[in-house]
Amino acid sequence: MNTPAAIEDFILNGHLHYVPHVSIDCAIFGYHEQQLKLLLIKHKALDDWCLPGGYIKRTETLGQAANRIVLERTGIGNLFLQQFKTFGDPDRAKTNSFDEEKWFKATGVRFNKNNWLIDQTISIGFYAITDFEKSVPKPDMMADDCAWFDLDTAPHLDFDHDEMVKEAQHTMRVQLYHYPIGYNMLPEKFTLTEIHALYETLLGKKLDISNFPKKLIALGLLKKLDEKRSIGAHHSPHLYMFDKEAYDKALKEGVVLS
Amino acid sequence: MNTPAAIEDFILNGHLHYVPHVSIDCAIFGYHEQQLKLLLIKHKALDDWCLPGGYIKRTETLGQAANRIVLERTGIGNLFLQQFKTFGDPDRAKTNSFDEEKWFKATGVRFNKNNWLIDQTISIGFYAITDFEKSVPKPDMMADDCAWFDLDTAPHLDFDHDEMVKEAQHTMRVQLYHYPIGYNMLPEKFTLTEIHALYETLLGKKLDISNFPKKLIALGLLKKLDEKRSIGAHHSPHLYMFDKEAYDKALKEGVVLS
Repeated sequence: MNTPAAIEDFILNGHLHYVPHVSIDCAIFGYHEQQLKLLLIKHKALDDWCLPGGYIKRTETLGQAANRIVLERTGIGNLFLQQFKTFGDPDRAKTNSFDEEKWFKATGVRFNKNNWLIDQTISIGFYAITDFEKSVPKPDMMADDCAWFDLDTAPHLDFDHDEMVKEAQHTMRVQLYHYPIGYNMLPEKFTLTEIHALYETLLGKKLDISNFPKKLIALGLLKKLDEKRSIGAHHSPHLYMFDKEAYDKALKEGVVLS
Repeated sequence: MNTPAAIEDFILNGHLHYVPHVSIDCAIFGYHEQQLKLLLIKHKALDDWCLPGGYIKRTETLGQAANRIVLERTGIGNLFLQQFKTFGDPDRAKTNSFDEEKWFKATGVRFNKNNWLIDQTISIGFYAITDFEKSVPKPDMMADDCAWFDLDTAPHLDFDHDEMVKEAQHTMRVQLYHYPIGYNMLPEKFTLTEIHALYETLLGKKLDISNFPKKLIALGLLKKLDEKRSIGAHHSPHLYMFDKEAYDKALKEGVVLS
């Protein structure tokens, strides 16, 4: 798929198969045991890292396109994926790092200022959350590398991608109050302490211990199991799991968790 | 501006001035004294009504474009305006009502299947809320009419605009918990009963009387004035107004109101 011929065909004829002027960029957050990471790619022709992205096939819905892009980069399909904002500042591609001719040179295709990839592009931002331990990052055909970075110490990103990450995180934090999140990020059976830690990490702040998990139980999203985890002689907390049917309904319709 | 020559120039050369393949559609909600309305336009070449919309100038940000469109249709600028979702189903324009040739005929310009307006278009949805009593609806150059409809009894809309309204309303209801809303929709000084009625109408449900307004006061968004409104001999409720500085800050940064 990433042969020079395939790359050349994408550059020269991509506008016949993809919608021109519109791209998708994905802020893919990875959670595991209180660590929050961000998936980044290193484009062949850029000095800085940036978010994974791609174009929308003319036969795809936006959600299908975003799912495909996330699946290609992480190896995981159908994870929690939400559109958060569309970015269209006219100068969003004018960065020090991005050079159109260099970009073409990296592909081996002759530079053409009328190429569909060069004209003004508006980008639809999606964010996803997954367990980074379960993913296998893979660069796209135009990138040399794809890797997880700690969110707190992630490098400066190219284009308007720093702003995208900030907006994605803001939307994710608002949506934590309105959608159940956690299905992909916790073991199948978990303790209240574990789900509490997930929410605290995603929200980036300490929470009253009785807050979110109790609301999730009250809404029927979490069910208490007749099982305990044995941690020590005097400490064996109850295990919980998501009620998948109620969870999927809440994901579709939204709830008020706070 | 709406001369036949201007319309022809827009159709034939618009892709030089606007970003092709991308449009903006606006769900403009109007509130006044517990009534909630929706602004619709009647396109010359469509049987059904639809949302006001337009294209993005190559020099504009998305927010500037949406502001311009809302200002042109309502006569009001800088009202509460939020991007809520981008719509890109490949078949979103394939409706019974929409006929490309009829569309061109209505403009007086010769039909050309390669015209930039005909190719697949992805649309960015914005929603706005204003006081419908303050607006002066005005159709765009391709429409015969522009009018407010009661939201509850609004007609079926063309394209995917019914879905857009549903999504806009959903986002508005979620965002009511995270952004201060009301600045344009209430008199400068108002009672707690009036702001409570605004929230109930927008949320479409009854609220505990002590709920939203108290949170707004606690967050410093509402300030109590040393003035009362005289309603009857034994009923003179206190007046309140928004603290514009705190309000604008909350609008930018978000809060948790629930």
